[in-house]
Amino acid sequence: METKLERIQSDLETLATYTSTPGNGVTRSSYSKEDTLAKEYLIKEMEKIGLHIYEDGFGTLFGRKEGTLKDAPVIMFGSHYDSVVNGGAFDGAAGSVAALEVMRVLKENDFVNDYPLELILMNAEEGATFGPSTGVSNSRAMVGTMTEYELKTVKNRFGQTKLEAMAEYGLVPDLEKAKRKPGSIKNFVELHVEQGPVLAKENVEIGLISYLAGIGRYTFKFFGKTGDSTAPMNSRKDALVATSNFIVKFDEAIKKLGKDVTGMVGKLDIIPNSNQFVPELVEGKIEIRTFSKEITEKVNFKQLIIDLLESVKNQFAIEYDLQEIKRINYPNPTGPSIMCAENVKKMEKICDDLGYSHIIINNGTGHDSMIMTDFTDTNMIYVPSRNNGVSHCPQEWTDYIDIKKGADVLLHLIMDISKK
Amino acid sequence: METKLERIQSDLETLATYTSTPGNGVTRSSYSKEDTLAKEYLIKEMEKIGLHIYEDGFGTLFGRKEGTLKDAPVIMFGSHYDSVVNGGAFDGAAGSVAALEVMRVLKENDFVNDYPLELILMNAEEGATFGPSTGVSNSRAMVGTMTEYELKTVKNRFGQTKLEAMAEYGLVPDLEKAKRKPGSIKNFVELHVEQGPVLAKENVEIGLISYLAGIGRYTFKFFGKTGDSTAPMNSRKDALVATSNFIVKFDEAIKKLGKDVTGMVGKLDIIPNSNQFVPELVEGKIEIRTFSKEITEKVNFKQLIIDLLESVKNQFAIEYDLQEIKRINYPNPTGPSIMCAENVKKMEKICDDLGYSHIIINNGTGHDSMIMTDFTDTNMIYVPSRNNGVSHCPQEWTDYIDIKKGADVLLHLIMDISKK
Repeated sequence: METKLERIQSDLETLATYTSTPGNGVTRSSYSKEDTLAKEYLIKEMEKIGLHIYEDGFGTLFGRKEGTLKDAPVIMFGSHYDSVVNGGAFDGAAGSVAALEVMRVLKENDFVNDYPLELILMNAEEGATFGPSTGVSNSRAMVGTMTEYELKTVKNRFGQTKLEAMAEYGLVPDLEKAKRKPGSIKNFVELHVEQGPVLAKENVEIGLISYLAGIGRYTFKFFGKTGDSTAPMNSRKDALVATSNFIVKFDEAIKKLGKDVTGMVGKLDIIPNSNQFVPELVEGKIEIRTFSKEITEKVNFKQLIIDLLESVKNQFAIEYDLQEIKRINYPNPTGPSIMCAENVKKMEKICDDLGYSHIIINNGTGHDSMIMTDFTDTNMIYVPSRNNGVSHCPQEWTDYIDIKKGADVLLHLIMDISKK
Repeated sequence: METKLERIQSDLETLATYTSTPGNGVTRSSYSKEDTLAKEYLIKEMEKIGLHIYEDGFGTLFGRKEGTLKDAPVIMFGSHYDSVVNGGAFDGAAGSVAALEVMRVLKENDFVNDYPLELILMNAEEGATFGPSTGVSNSRAMVGTMTEYELKTVKNRFGQTKLEAMAEYGLVPDLEKAKRKPGSIKNFVELHVEQGPVLAKENVEIGLISYLAGIGRYTFKFFGKTGDSTAPMNSRKDALVATSNFIVKFDEAIKKLGKDVTGMVGKLDIIPNSNQFVPELVEGKIEIRTFSKEITEKVNFKQLIIDLLESVKNQFAIEYDLQEIKRINYPNPTGPSIMCAENVKKMEKICDDLGYSHIIINNGTGHDSMIMTDFTDTNMIYVPSRNNGVSHCPQEWTDYIDIKKGADVLLHLIMDISKK
């Protein structure tokens, strides 16, 4: 059994036409007219296969194929089909189409699954629509970490709250109803374009994720005092000297914690950033990655940062500010998302059997799958991003044949795990 | 005796018409047609007073008024009349006109000086014309630090070397002839607009310089290694961590040297300056100011910086680069320019007598006076710059009345020091 390239290409080319910015990439914002058009197309395709179609209160579209087991937990596979503004035709859509094609192949081959299968197509993954930390809405609704507060406060570029935009789109979101029971989802599997250059550069067809690192993001500021280059040293509050002391201490502290964590200050904004004036204000971005749950249990990173900032404050009598950038509404924002290792092994074998080259790749940004890892056994399949791995822009590109290969791996994994 | 506001205003307004960019500030580049026009005007005005006019091989214009002493060292006062491209009407011109007006007043009052007086009007102060470190040409020719190499290599925006531009202007520069004998110049006095906001902001009429700090400028780079935010800590070469370590050490080292020196890194350029990527390259600007000759004799700043860079290199196995930015062709580029303290005191009294408010102000960029401080007793008078102190732009402005007051101080200082 294998997926069909032509259908994948046709689905993706059709979805790409549902954009509010024709000629300038794909813009398919959550709850927009283009979202509706795409959903109508997807429903029509699901109807052709004869799936049982339903939608939850958050606009998540499901296409169910019952199995031989009654009341058994479901195997979900799919992705999102919304995009950023002036984005590409592959981020999300590739995984949605791959999953749809897998369902087609299973149906036309009269595949008999024991566990029920559900195609899941989500429309609110991109945080861009309602601002940072507002993405992965559909999965958060399912695992129960979406909040009433968010629905009523965050706004899209048209000034609508999430709730208002959803209402206009025809949704009445019910947090309780959308929540899935623990144990009710057996697996969650998502194919996605890499959004990075590694697979293409290394000429590898399939990327298998064993974990996505936990991400901690913080913004700090040191409030110095302006002065020209003749200002006496003992009168200065040099925000860059304070920042440098912090960076030195932070780098030492992270290195001491061992291999399960990385951390750095990768970005500084210095005001005025002139050779002739004492730096008055420095804003720095801290980026932390964690690779084990143990390290996040052992270390309170926010407190670690505060302790270092305090020591710099005391040394230089300089005030600071610290903001934690919450990326996703996730109980432990700095914890890693660990994928199901057993299924990674299975997919390695599937790739070998199909003759597809593969590597373990653990790079990635936010995905609905990250939300699902604490809820159920989750896996991700990456396919190569071309054009040096750019995404979220019109130049985003993945070859259709690469998506077909990824879909084949997805197909065979689903066939395997859907059996008793 | 006092200077006349109308004549100062008229001179400045006339000089402002000799610009190659009418309507867009004053552009009077060294050795240009506008330079020639301005020089012709200045010569005509000097002729009216009956000064003995001569020019050296570098285009420096002198107007001499003999004194009662024969073969006595000369008292020079004046400034430059060239400008940057799209500059203002006051930087340089204010001091040239003030000095011309002082000569007029002395002449019309039949003032009898013992020491000979020379109005000095220079046409190549702005480094902009031939690039950084090429300015203050006239004074460097006089003190003997101009070089053949510079004349033949540096080029203006039309691609001419200094030598070619001078030849076209009608000059045959002779380094030996232009050089003044040590002891042959008794004093050098220059009035200049502040090019800063202090006097205007503090509502003070006269600024007296006691010294202009020595300036050391260096650019360093650390060559790190790119990597994403998951790159293992022990595999990284983080250029910002290296830079931070350097800044911490440099700040400590400068503070240890006491009050005669300041130093900082005020500007960083970080590549890529992204929260998600290990800083690959950081370029930093080091700015040093020295306030005593002792500190520059005691400390080799370039070596101090190299030692710190080396220690960071050894600690992090990261390569660096260091460039010294030579601002002026000056034997000790980091040494301060100390003004004649006795004359500062005299001018304080003159201001008090004239009822002009005054402060000591030690801020300043490059001036011909800085070149002269090691050669002879030198003094500078600042008058307020309006428009928040901007200069080198069409918005540069000094009120004519403020220039007149500065010229009065210059007049009375010259009257005082020209007597036996």
